[in-house]
Amino acid sequence: MPPRPGSPRPKRPKRTKPASKGRPKFVYTFREGEAEGDRDQKNLLGGKGANLAEMCRLGLPVPPGFTITTEVCSHFHDRSHRFPPSLRKELNGALDQLEKSMGKRFGDPTNPLLVSVRSGARVSMPGMMDTVLNLGLNDETVDGLANLTENPRFAWDAYRRFIQMYSDVVLEVRAAKGETQSPFTRALDDLKRKRGVTEDTELEAQDWMGLVRTYKSLVKKATGKPFPQDPQEQLWGAIGAVFHSWNNERAIAYRSMHMIPSKWGTAVTIMTMVYGNMGDTSGTGVAFTRDPSTGEKRFYGEFLMNAQGEDVVAGLRTPKPISNLLEVMPKAYAQLERIQRLLERHYRDMQDLEFTIEQGRLFMLQCRAGKRTGFAAVRIATDLVKERKITQKEALLRVDPEALDQLLQPVFDRVEQERARKDGRVLTRGLNAGPGAASGRIAFTPAEAIAYKEAGEKSILVRLETSPEDIRGMQASMGILTVRGGMTSHAALVGRQMGKVCVVGAAHLRIEERRRTLRVGERRVSAGEWISIDGTTGEVFVGQLATQPSQVTQALLGKGKRAERAAQSPTFKAYSAIMRWADKHRSMAIRANADQPDQCRVATAFGAQGIGLCRTEHMFFGEKKIGAMREMILADDTGARKRALAKLLPLQRRDFEGIFMAMGRRPVTIRTLDPPLHEFLPHEKPAQRELAKKLGLKPSDIAAKVESLTELNPMLGHRGCRLGITFPEITQMQVRAVFEAACNVAKRTGKKPRVELMIPLIASSQELEVQEPLVRATVEEVFAKKGIRVPFLVGTMIELPRAALVADAIARTAEFFSFGTNDLTQTTFGISRDDAGKFIPEYIQEGIYAGDPFASLDTRGVGRLMEMAVEQGRATRPGIKLGICGEHGGDPRSIEFCEALGLAYVSCSPYRIPIARLAAAQAALRA
Amino acid sequence: MPPRPGSPRPKRPKRTKPASKGRPKFVYTFREGEAEGDRDQKNLLGGKGANLAEMCRLGLPVPPGFTITTEVCSHFHDRSHRFPPSLRKELNGALDQLEKSMGKRFGDPTNPLLVSVRSGARVSMPGMMDTVLNLGLNDETVDGLANLTENPRFAWDAYRRFIQMYSDVVLEVRAAKGETQSPFTRALDDLKRKRGVTEDTELEAQDWMGLVRTYKSLVKKATGKPFPQDPQEQLWGAIGAVFHSWNNERAIAYRSMHMIPSKWGTAVTIMTMVYGNMGDTSGTGVAFTRDPSTGEKRFYGEFLMNAQGEDVVAGLRTPKPISNLLEVMPKAYAQLERIQRLLERHYRDMQDLEFTIEQGRLFMLQCRAGKRTGFAAVRIATDLVKERKITQKEALLRVDPEALDQLLQPVFDRVEQERARKDGRVLTRGLNAGPGAASGRIAFTPAEAIAYKEAGEKSILVRLETSPEDIRGMQASMGILTVRGGMTSHAALVGRQMGKVCVVGAAHLRIEERRRTLRVGERRVSAGEWISIDGTTGEVFVGQLATQPSQVTQALLGKGKRAERAAQSPTFKAYSAIMRWADKHRSMAIRANADQPDQCRVATAFGAQGIGLCRTEHMFFGEKKIGAMREMILADDTGARKRALAKLLPLQRRDFEGIFMAMGRRPVTIRTLDPPLHEFLPHEKPAQRELAKKLGLKPSDIAAKVESLTELNPMLGHRGCRLGITFPEITQMQVRAVFEAACNVAKRTGKKPRVELMIPLIASSQELEVQEPLVRATVEEVFAKKGIRVPFLVGTMIELPRAALVADAIARTAEFFSFGTNDLTQTTFGISRDDAGKFIPEYIQEGIYAGDPFASLDTRGVGRLMEMAVEQGRATRPGIKLGICGEHGGDPRSIEFCEALGLAYVSCSPYRIPIARLAAAQAALRA
Repeated sequence: MPPRPGSPRPKRPKRTKPASKGRPKFVYTFREGEAEGDRDQKNLLGGKGANLAEMCRLGLPVPPGFTITTEVCSHFHDRSHRFPPSLRKELNGALDQLEKSMGKRFGDPTNPLLVSVRSGARVSMPGMMDTVLNLGLNDETVDGLANLTENPRFAWDAYRRFIQMYSDVVLEVRAAKGETQSPFTRALDDLKRKRGVTEDTELEAQDWMGLVRTYKSLVKKATGKPFPQDPQEQLWGAIGAVFHSWNNERAIAYRSMHMIPSKWGTAVTIMTMVYGNMGDTSGTGVAFTRDPSTGEKRFYGEFLMNAQGEDVVAGLRTPKPISNLLEVMPKAYAQLERIQRLLERHYRDMQDLEFTIEQGRLFMLQCRAGKRTGFAAVRIATDLVKERKITQKEALLRVDPEALDQLLQPVFDRVEQERARKDGRVLTRGLNAGPGAASGRIAFTPAEAIAYKEAGEKSILVRLETSPEDIRGMQASMGILTVRGGMTSHAALVGRQMGKVCVVGAAHLRIEERRRTLRVGERRVSAGEWISIDGTTGEVFVGQLATQPSQVTQALLGKGKRAERAAQSPTFKAYSAIMRWADKHRSMAIRANADQPDQCRVATAFGAQGIGLCRTEHMFFGEKKIGAMREMILADDTGARKRALAKLLPLQRRDFEGIFMAMGRRPVTIRTLDPPLHEFLPHEKPAQRELAKKLGLKPSDIAAKVESLTELNPMLGHRGCRLGITFPEITQMQVRAVFEAACNVAKRTGKKPRVELMIPLIASSQELEVQEPLVRATVEEVFAKKGIRVPFLVGTMIELPRAALVADAIARTAEFFSFGTNDLTQTTFGISRDDAGKFIPEYIQEGIYAGDPFASLDTRGVGRLMEMAVEQGRATRPGIKLGICGEHGGDPRSIEFCEALGLAYVSCSPYRIPIARLAAAQAALRA
Repeated sequence: MPPRPGSPRPKRPKRTKPASKGRPKFVYTFREGEAEGDRDQKNLLGGKGANLAEMCRLGLPVPPGFTITTEVCSHFHDRSHRFPPSLRKELNGALDQLEKSMGKRFGDPTNPLLVSVRSGARVSMPGMMDTVLNLGLNDETVDGLANLTENPRFAWDAYRRFIQMYSDVVLEVRAAKGETQSPFTRALDDLKRKRGVTEDTELEAQDWMGLVRTYKSLVKKATGKPFPQDPQEQLWGAIGAVFHSWNNERAIAYRSMHMIPSKWGTAVTIMTMVYGNMGDTSGTGVAFTRDPSTGEKRFYGEFLMNAQGEDVVAGLRTPKPISNLLEVMPKAYAQLERIQRLLERHYRDMQDLEFTIEQGRLFMLQCRAGKRTGFAAVRIATDLVKERKITQKEALLRVDPEALDQLLQPVFDRVEQERARKDGRVLTRGLNAGPGAASGRIAFTPAEAIAYKEAGEKSILVRLETSPEDIRGMQASMGILTVRGGMTSHAALVGRQMGKVCVVGAAHLRIEERRRTLRVGERRVSAGEWISIDGTTGEVFVGQLATQPSQVTQALLGKGKRAERAAQSPTFKAYSAIMRWADKHRSMAIRANADQPDQCRVATAFGAQGIGLCRTEHMFFGEKKIGAMREMILADDTGARKRALAKLLPLQRRDFEGIFMAMGRRPVTIRTLDPPLHEFLPHEKPAQRELAKKLGLKPSDIAAKVESLTELNPMLGHRGCRLGITFPEITQMQVRAVFEAACNVAKRTGKKPRVELMIPLIASSQELEVQEPLVRATVEEVFAKKGIRVPFLVGTMIELPRAALVADAIARTAEFFSFGTNDLTQTTFGISRDDAGKFIPEYIQEGIYAGDPFASLDTRGVGRLMEMAVEQGRATRPGIKLGICGEHGGDPRSIEFCEALGLAYVSCSPYRIPIARLAAAQAALRA
């Protein structure tokens, strides 16, 4: 057993140098009071190893052991699973030391040393990799353990657990194909049936002894070899298995999800076993220094008496709240309580602790910064500032900006959702593209969604994929569910911007159009029936789950008493503090992508300092407008086109007036028409017939026009400024609408709107040189007619590689650049966002992409082009205004890159503004 | 009249310095024996001005005058059509000098100076810009001219010509909308009808005098002002009009077709008038120092007695061969013959001369390098080397690589042509102005020719005569046939330059516009019917004649006596010499893009040194192969896919064996499967049904598969290495087929093929890092099985912007880069080649693009990416092999850029290899 606690805290030894002859050191030992490593060596020792070392240095009771570095893992994977030659010697040295300090020997039949072998990466990857406990047991040492503990039942139980775990992890003896149970579990079940018992605890030492025999013969049968009896052989096998598990499927998936490089590798920590299952004075538990769900300041946790850690995780027995420990074992509780305070003070953050009590003696098995919800993150960070434990800057860096999203989304009632899962009401699962919770009736078409809305009913729009024609239906629905598409598909993009709950790429879903049903396997749900989607988890439920707006949204956008009450909530107060500090420390402005006055109002409530992208085409999908737009497209000559445009002008102007009213003096970037014209025409025969009737044309004329506008690759087709150049009258109409609206609002309110007019899809400076004079001439005409001027800039999007490459020439005309990183990513990679679903998931899974480049900016490729554009743009026009309006503008990693580029602002969807504010502050603080 | 010829050749004066105070000099004078400019100042004085100055320096008889520089043109267009302030003073000085040297004065009623005002750009743009003749005439000076020449008829004819030309060019008094005739032409026709005559020559001085009155009142009516009488006003008006004409529609079209930058501008040359229409001792003509059609060494040309230059060019009267001049005016002929020899010797190239004989006295009006056919270009260049006038290097630089294309174009099948002659299928005969053979449907207007081209049909443009407005139609047609005009008419000149088959002056042909028929005697052919024209013999055939390969193609690819005979032709000998010299001087290798053994044989015959791109997917479209390919695509799992692939393997292997047999030890770059899979499936219902039957599937299964593979932007979709990564078994099968074939051929022939295996559409180094080991493992398997190795490289295409941006990382794995500039251009510009037709023509017309970036490499944008890739690729792997396999590999301008980048090879389609060989030599010589 380990040395007694309470020895004086040692001086910090110097960091150990690499071993002689420049060879790196591979093994770091630790024991209570001293350690070769410390908390700063997470990269080398993994989070677990580093924190164990740190706790030892703090003099806390930790079972002694040693850690094999992550470098060994890299070596292992780079060299066809061979260990570095010098490892064996180092490890044997550490083992000797451990044996000496414990007074036990590995494989000693009378006084055996038993160890656990655990993984531990630089960042926590809970449950992803493998662990082996009770290592060192064999047919001889099991007796030694039985004698030592005077508890044969415990010893044989430990031995059978060891065989089962080792066989699974190292020998890969697992459930046969087509079966769910491992042979070990089945053998145990058989035994219990034979004994007529249901609980493990009802089995005797003899039973375990018999089971060990059965287990060993199972291993022999499966592997052709007896179960290894040599503890050294066991140890090396376990170390290799842990390293192997770094590259198991679920670890790879987890890494790609969290952008963890595969080259980091895992460390392996070998630690003396302590037992929480040695009777009624033993136990094990997990605790947090504060509530990880709400952030409330209270010692929080659970424990089980007479149990091992795995029993807590497995959930077979229900653990008790930590406070109960005070009654059961007051001394241990007091020590633990002291330690938790010490650790939070020491780490200056909420800690997650694992402990075991072996026959009344407390051991700390792990400590790390505790995972927490967004709510808790905000609350803890602000509380720690109040408690003067951390500074405001530190608090800002403690909160993951993405976590703020949780504070804004309506939520399902937690209890009801849990019940729904247990009741088997989960229909399927997709990608969590737009967080939050929504329930509604299934609508298969936008028209149905609109009809539901008009009837005062909620709907979920379910589509194979969405297109711009669907946006009114999307707006009308509570949430969007698609079969195809990724995190940046049209549905995800527009859904997020609208703040809609959105689940995309639910690949197991079949839409049966004839039957008007959704099918998953043999389960069917019909149009009009209720479903509920959770955009935070990606779950799709059958039936209706109640939702409620979050407190922060209530406080910012709500009215009356409810809003007042919400504003008094600890969550909102914490949120407000974080936002206030973020605004104080960030250097970039935050704008919103918004096309409608109500979106603008939401955006400003969330703190938007302007509009970074107003997509004028979204305005054309309104009831009246789409008609005039279609007339314009179907016009045979410039004259007819101009007449149709004249109808659109007042409608667009009204939209812009609403936006300028909402935005006041904040700058508003308005992009001229961007998508290809065929997007505005109906593609289905019935709709074409209807339109033909309306406009007095032949259906075949409309079909012919649709046909003539059809493109093989519309993304690379006749769109953006190419439209404005071939149809200058469209640009003129839009510019007129924008500036007439601006002048009207200036007169009405006395506040002059600040317009930034943006020409999209520029690939060569000449394109802008053709459009810009047209814009300016039209603007001057409006100013002259209105007798008032408003400040304005003319600029362009940088969204094609060539634009970045010739940015110096473009900057001669452009007064600002706005990076359209969605399209820039598409063209730089040569990937259509709409079609990428077929390979991007596989690319991420195989580690070809660290992450989805449409979600987080590819700084190496796309970022390089941005750097060039920034550099060249500034060389031509030193004061050029620079911003980003692609979806990446709401992504914290991308925002950090924008800060490094020195952009003036980032622009994102309204509901991501709080995230961007915090991310921008973090970027500025890290810079 | 100008000073007499024969004065001694002066010493070359120093180049005139810019005027005082650093002001640029805008006006350069010239007169026989001396000039301020010289031949090297084409950029400043235009081709015409520079060569007139040079001829003056050579002491040749040139009417004196002066040239206003191209810089004035640029100033004029940059500053809203204003002249530089100092121009007036300089021009007046030059005019004074001219008046003094001529002993005449501008506007002097008794002895008036008359001038022509002509355009002249850096390179010849025949007929594109405007000219004004007889300037200086007014109501007073016309009498002076009548007295001086003692020829009132001549004087009044000159005056009415001046009014007509000036009104058209400067005052823009032109045909009313909807009419084809100008009011002046109509007035002349009315007059002739009134007088009862048909020819201009039948009209008297009195008639012209009356017509001048009518013309002046027409001008007054149209412009509201009297016709300008002040010669100074006339002069400035004409200068402005010539500058304006630099930006007229046809000049812009011509520039875009020939990639002439609009900023070059035109010079204006003002030259004393001389008259070829002063009676029977006067005349005018055009001559070439060698035959511009065949290149034969003989003085060649045409003249008209008693005519002005415009009469020759307009083709209204059919001119006589130059040899006739010897009989009519032996002295003038002798002088001209001496001058042509002197000029060819001086310029060391074939010259195109314009001359006028005024009352027995010869004046040179122009000299320039003569336009010539590809046949002539090659012949003249090699002859000049033989005559020791130029070096081999100079000869190489003299031939436009594109012109070689003419030498490879088919001619009519000799037997069939003979039969057609006997069958009376010869409709008529004209002048053989542009060699080659062409068949097509009769198009009477440029618009028809363009419509045929757009419909994928061939046409022959048939015109009375062509004018600069026709050039787009000429470009669209297969050949040009005109009723009027000689070997130096507009049709002949422009047709030759375009490499079009051209027969001019088919005088017996009548175009019946109403009936839309061609008539010769009683024989009629209607619009839309087929005719065939032989530009080498001048014959016009009814119907479509089969063609046979050209002499060069015959000699290279033919067999037996025919090939031997062709190899002895002057054309082939000249071609061979040029190719031999080109190969000696170029540094880049030339490869072919070819997918089939027969293509490989053609390629090597044309001199290919390897295959730069073998597109393996082209092989899948064979009868048997498409079946197995479809089976593979429709496979539901890896097993079924592998079975289908096993069927494809032997088929692919056989194709590769054929290619390796054809290529011997030359390197062969093979690209793994590139296009999206849906390209291989039938999209139409009936074909889907048929396929379903064949494979025993339901048609709906196939429709569903097609549906599931359909992409919104297939260009940016699941293709290239993305296929190889998601379906590694496809890559494996292809690699196996390639290397089994290579090993088989190595064993069979003893020659080891050199394989360069190329992975397409790489955007990140990781993609290659996944595919490359798969390739190498498969290759090693094959080598082991076959017991033989062949040399090979594994590399990638650089065809996405990101690949260029991360080329350093890619080069860690790639042993070579091949630039796929087609796709690189598409993604860099964000333009789908398939959809670009809707705006690229307009972009070129409006000058937004200098040319089609898919035809000639965009060095500024795409080229910048290539530079980065080259630089980074070499930084990682200094010896990395670099080439280009996009369509640009056959474009001379692009080849020059590749030479600058230091690429190892360019690859193009087999028939462009001779062009590429010459272009590569030129690039190396220019470097």
